[in-house]
Amino acid sequence: MFQKILIANRGEIALRIQRACREMGIRTVAVHSTADAAAMHVRLADESVCIGPPAARDSYLNVPSILSAATITGADAIHPGYGFLSENASFAEMVEAHGLTFIGPSPAHIRMMGDKIAAKAAMGALGVPLVPGSAGAIADIDEARRIASDIGYPVLIKAAAGGGGRGMKVAAGPDELEEAWQLARTEARAAFGNDAVYMEKYLDRPRHIELQILADNFGQVVHFGERDCSLQRRHQKLLEEAGSPALTPGQRDALGSTVTAALSQLGYRNAGTLEFLYQDGHFAFIEMNTRLQVEHPVTEMVCGVDLVREQIRIAAGRRLSYEQSEIAFTGHAIECRITAENPETFMPTPGRVTAFHAPGGLGVRVDSALYAGYVVPPYYDSMVAKLIVHAPTRAEAIARLRRSLAEFAVVGIETTVPLHQRIVEHPDFIAGQYTIHWLERFVSQQG
Amino acid sequence: MFQKILIANRGEIALRIQRACREMGIRTVAVHSTADAAAMHVRLADESVCIGPPAARDSYLNVPSILSAATITGADAIHPGYGFLSENASFAEMVEAHGLTFIGPSPAHIRMMGDKIAAKAAMGALGVPLVPGSAGAIADIDEARRIASDIGYPVLIKAAAGGGGRGMKVAAGPDELEEAWQLARTEARAAFGNDAVYMEKYLDRPRHIELQILADNFGQVVHFGERDCSLQRRHQKLLEEAGSPALTPGQRDALGSTVTAALSQLGYRNAGTLEFLYQDGHFAFIEMNTRLQVEHPVTEMVCGVDLVREQIRIAAGRRLSYEQSEIAFTGHAIECRITAENPETFMPTPGRVTAFHAPGGLGVRVDSALYAGYVVPPYYDSMVAKLIVHAPTRAEAIARLRRSLAEFAVVGIETTVPLHQRIVEHPDFIAGQYTIHWLERFVSQQG
Repeated sequence: MFQKILIANRGEIALRIQRACREMGIRTVAVHSTADAAAMHVRLADESVCIGPPAARDSYLNVPSILSAATITGADAIHPGYGFLSENASFAEMVEAHGLTFIGPSPAHIRMMGDKIAAKAAMGALGVPLVPGSAGAIADIDEARRIASDIGYPVLIKAAAGGGGRGMKVAAGPDELEEAWQLARTEARAAFGNDAVYMEKYLDRPRHIELQILADNFGQVVHFGERDCSLQRRHQKLLEEAGSPALTPGQRDALGSTVTAALSQLGYRNAGTLEFLYQDGHFAFIEMNTRLQVEHPVTEMVCGVDLVREQIRIAAGRRLSYEQSEIAFTGHAIECRITAENPETFMPTPGRVTAFHAPGGLGVRVDSALYAGYVVPPYYDSMVAKLIVHAPTRAEAIARLRRSLAEFAVVGIETTVPLHQRIVEHPDFIAGQYTIHWLERFVSQQG
Repeated sequence: MFQKILIANRGEIALRIQRACREMGIRTVAVHSTADAAAMHVRLADESVCIGPPAARDSYLNVPSILSAATITGADAIHPGYGFLSENASFAEMVEAHGLTFIGPSPAHIRMMGDKIAAKAAMGALGVPLVPGSAGAIADIDEARRIASDIGYPVLIKAAAGGGGRGMKVAAGPDELEEAWQLARTEARAAFGNDAVYMEKYLDRPRHIELQILADNFGQVVHFGERDCSLQRRHQKLLEEAGSPALTPGQRDALGSTVTAALSQLGYRNAGTLEFLYQDGHFAFIEMNTRLQVEHPVTEMVCGVDLVREQIRIAAGRRLSYEQSEIAFTGHAIECRITAENPETFMPTPGRVTAFHAPGGLGVRVDSALYAGYVVPPYYDSMVAKLIVHAPTRAEAIARLRRSLAEFAVVGIETTVPLHQRIVEHPDFIAGQYTIHWLERFVSQQG
């Protein structure tokens, strides 16, 4: 097992990884920018190294500095957390080239999944469901009609050469198809000099559902169920649930089997998340994240697993601690991402936290690097805390979330706690009836 | 269901009960002494009533004040927590006489279990194991020899009329029996004017093991497994575990079956805990606590149950949410009772808490009414926080406890965190090899 791990990250996730290391008896090295010298992840590490000035490109993205820090401190592995260098295949290669272990997938898999088109093609070829559509360009309106009727309306006609929404038309039903077809081709010809179009099912009200997996170096791949991350604003997730209020255990098992078989064929290792759009019983793969995710705690709560511990074990060449049959899903978990932002305008609110009191009690977990006296710097992501609740049922989890949000006290800066308090009172949220568009509408109606 | 519950307690347990109420949509009334006007349990309650001056007898034990507070605020039930009035049968009767519901067992059962001798007789008659011994006074040395050889050495000869250790002698083996017999009778005659003696097996290195039960008003009794509370100093528990490192699941099931059958026959209702001494595979019932216990969270963690919620539901006439077959024991949980005391002298350290930061992350629960700026009053129990950890195995739970104790920050007053940090490093603790005498020796060796 590793003796010392350098954690190439900051904030709550650096602390999260430190905690796993400490519980495994592994020493930790924190790295930090000059702006983070007094940060919690630095204060609680065994050692720390300053890697540069505040701007992330000069510190948390500064590969030579980070590799030097690892060498100087004698670390034998690097955990990248999420964001920053976590999905940078070249960084992973350089880590390995320096004789250290990168705690994550192979650089080849990071690179493959970083190319979103190649990732779709690869996963589609391995049997992972994609958005239904034509195999390629459509010859004529008769073929268009046949495919549309196969995949079901509404459908989206898209320029084969296109992008940016040009040459893209929706047909809600058969009577709109011919006009959409003509318009899309005309636009495609004008924009790209090529009127070839193809067709996809148009998902007008999808949910964002993702599946957590772990794979070891011995070919074993296990999934830990799904997370529903549909509550997003500008593609940023705000609140995540495990499991999804929209899925049945049978759907979870079926998707899990498909995905683990595909990743096993691919030879993938360590942690990963496959993201899907989900609508009307169908999943459509959109991308794979080759790292730990912000919302991993909800999976930990329902599965009783320590995902970071498993990542470290796998990277050290150990076998997965679990077989698929040992993974049980108990109760329901919800995470709120609490950011240092105005809860109405979403303007960042960096500054001094004069008081901080986290909620406690049964079924409440707080992952945060906040402390009283901490100054939230203006340079980085504004997320300052994750509040995670776990309860036997979704209704009880919501009740627990409500009471723990009410206990959550941050003084000195504004946070998005009040926004979360409004979300959890909304009948749509309580009913579990929301799509990826719901939060944008909710937020605009609040304004 | 109740609309409003008055919580006749203070500190962390008042907060614990409030949290359950809030999650159930029940309003809460806090009561407090003048010393507790700024306490957390008052700040977070929906309503609060001052019930008297600092001394507990004038406030938290002031029955007329508490009943008036319930009447004034229109509460429909009272939860007594632990300590204070929680095992006062007359209080429970008065609560019912005022038309309110007492959240706990019937006054008759509280009274029965309050008489420790009657409790043992009653439970023994219902098949609950007691300390093995003679049925009553022993006629002669031959009978003494026969019984001692039956129950096994060492044995304790005790004055039938006795108490306070007088007329009590240990015989380690057959060669010590006659002398112990003679000495005990002589002392008994001198002290009590009666030389009748009886015999019990002498438990020289017992563990304290207790079983949590819940019973509803429909005759259903369910047990939630055992807690090992052997780490005690002056009969005060300091650290508790679920399950016991000394028991097998088979032993737990067997004890559980015996106890639930007995309580079902007794017609017991609501929460209760049966305390046992355990040695060499044998349990000996010592007493039953007819209330929620300080250490209930470790049971909640391994069973995934909310005991306070169940107490409230039962008191409101609902059926238990669980059948025995639905109770699974997952992983291992440990609780540290953190007190405002010097960790070496155990002198109380009331005063102002200038900073407080609770540990967080996976598998960590903190039940505490501490906050930065809070003044720990000198009038009450010195426990200020319970740190509870849960992990898949005992070894992982200990590792988690170690790291979360290191994160636990209280500034301004001394606490017993350093004592717990020493305990969790000790090989005996790590091996789970300790009796009820271990902690006293450990503490005296530290001094």
